[in-house]
Amino acid sequence: MPLKNDLILRAARGEKVERTPVWLMRQAGRILPEYRKVRAKMGGFKELVETPEFACEVTIQPVDILGVDAAIIFSDILVIPEAMGLPYQMIEAKGPWFEKTIKTANDIAQLKIATADDLHYVMDAIKLTKSGLNDRVPLIGFAGAPWTIFAYMIEGSGSKTFSQAKKFLYTQPILSHQLLQKITDSTINYLKGQISSGADMLQLFDSWAGVLSPEQYREFALKYISKICDAITEVPLTVFAKDAHFVRKDLGELNCNSIGLDWTMDIAESRELIGNTKTLQGNMDPCLLYADYTHIKQDTIKMLKSFGPQRHIANLGHGLYPDIDKDKVICFVETIKEFRF
Amino acid sequence: MPLKNDLILRAARGEKVERTPVWLMRQAGRILPEYRKVRAKMGGFKELVETPEFACEVTIQPVDILGVDAAIIFSDILVIPEAMGLPYQMIEAKGPWFEKTIKTANDIAQLKIATADDLHYVMDAIKLTKSGLNDRVPLIGFAGAPWTIFAYMIEGSGSKTFSQAKKFLYTQPILSHQLLQKITDSTINYLKGQISSGADMLQLFDSWAGVLSPEQYREFALKYISKICDAITEVPLTVFAKDAHFVRKDLGELNCNSIGLDWTMDIAESRELIGNTKTLQGNMDPCLLYADYTHIKQDTIKMLKSFGPQRHIANLGHGLYPDIDKDKVICFVETIKEFRF
Repeated sequence: MPLKNDLILRAARGEKVERTPVWLMRQAGRILPEYRKVRAKMGGFKELVETPEFACEVTIQPVDILGVDAAIIFSDILVIPEAMGLPYQMIEAKGPWFEKTIKTANDIAQLKIATADDLHYVMDAIKLTKSGLNDRVPLIGFAGAPWTIFAYMIEGSGSKTFSQAKKFLYTQPILSHQLLQKITDSTINYLKGQISSGADMLQLFDSWAGVLSPEQYREFALKYISKICDAITEVPLTVFAKDAHFVRKDLGELNCNSIGLDWTMDIAESRELIGNTKTLQGNMDPCLLYADYTHIKQDTIKMLKSFGPQRHIANLGHGLYPDIDKDKVICFVETIKEFRF
Repeated sequence: MPLKNDLILRAARGEKVERTPVWLMRQAGRILPEYRKVRAKMGGFKELVETPEFACEVTIQPVDILGVDAAIIFSDILVIPEAMGLPYQMIEAKGPWFEKTIKTANDIAQLKIATADDLHYVMDAIKLTKSGLNDRVPLIGFAGAPWTIFAYMIEGSGSKTFSQAKKFLYTQPILSHQLLQKITDSTINYLKGQISSGADMLQLFDSWAGVLSPEQYREFALKYISKICDAITEVPLTVFAKDAHFVRKDLGELNCNSIGLDWTMDIAESRELIGNTKTLQGNMDPCLLYADYTHIKQDTIKMLKSFGPQRHIANLGHGLYPDIDKDKVICFVETIKEFRF
């Protein structure tokens, strides 16, 4: 069945849209009481990710409650290292933690290249969600970009600097490339599986892009993102390299449809650097949603005008913060949906 | 007495230098066994900051051991909120923590505007260090930029997003400006005191510049940095706004001598944005110092060539990480000191 609302897909492909489409990173999550209810039934975040029925339920919630133009499958970028052989725990208020990390050539040799079958619970969640959405809006699938996944596999947890992961790049460049290639192969298998299961669009999150120098980013991050872009030809793909202001020109040359911007990136400057062949996604400061309604509306309209009427998918410049008032999110979404150029 | 080595001051003022001068952010610190010895004698980091004899001793250590072209007074940016009425603790492996934070207009009204006398221990440490340095190299004083200090005063600790501090900007803009002005007045008093005590140069650290949108940065951060720049006319001043790639053009218009760059900022692009009237400081990735000696030398020379022979003060793009090998730091310093264009 054709999608009833395919605005985001058309915007990604550079086709004409009647209005700017909108979704929000982390739209399924703690800001919704309905999410917190499902979450409370489960043991924790990971159990939710691994249980297709519930992952499906929370994925669809924001479509109903917030009125966004796309659903994004409820999952985690760290399912890939786990499928490759490094299980992780999600520790409340602390973040992810890996018992085993990568230190040696042998550690890398022992990792398997993940297949879609290894992540069957994500595939099942996508199939269930596609069915549950009933073609109302597109379903976005996603994965972490190889550098970000690599950073967690070396560091074993979050970090302000990811200095141990960077140390590995500086001291073990050959092993680094081996590991990044294994992650890339796994990610391509995973994303292809998501497409087969029904994902209408994909996004790569390079959450820790900003800790690398431009030179290292090109050598160890962009190269593998580029391989993924070349491999994914079936559906539109967005690359979101947070804080990677320094490679916007390079991002414009990727074989993908759209580029995510964070809120520190000037819109006109980014358009100039990235060029006119890409759709831009973003880029409101998530903290704007703490402001009053008038302020939210005003800044949202200003953002829409800066991006212009075509080749823009409205979003935040980062994931929603968990303490944001749901009604403020609805105000942001409604302002975008009501605005006409 | 005139300084025996005034390379950094001349570079800051745009005067001709025979070679590029170098110092490192956090050069006094855990990478030096000599520092760790002094530190072990004290109760902790704060006691060291507050005891002029020992602050002086660790300030001079890197001049002797690393051979850098300047000393920077061993202190902390958070002495200002404390002098204004918000005491803090430095919790091992966690960072700073404030018992009381700013929430209301009354909280702001109760803050005092700090004077140099309130920070007599820093003044004493500067005087002792000036005497101990015996005019070998300049002594750099410093303070946090108002936005960064504000962020800690609201948030009460470090944060990945500083979302509560940003929320305050969005929801309480008038109170925010009041607080920022009080911090600015305190900072000017403090820096003037540092000059009177003997500081030859000053630096403002805006460590959390990167979490703000360009618009908020201009309204709530740059405005107050500019007031400080205008007030400090006696000695050269460097502004280092980490991650504030988006306001490099604006930084070029400040009434200061030099601008710090982090390692994500392309050197040629930064020079173009900032213009030719400023000295640039930086910007090696601190993680390069994990690499082998050949790699360190090669990348350091590449950096020197990118900046060119004049109007550059070599440094890292952030503070030294505590687990870096001292000999690698010496290699970085020596490479710079030996290089001739």
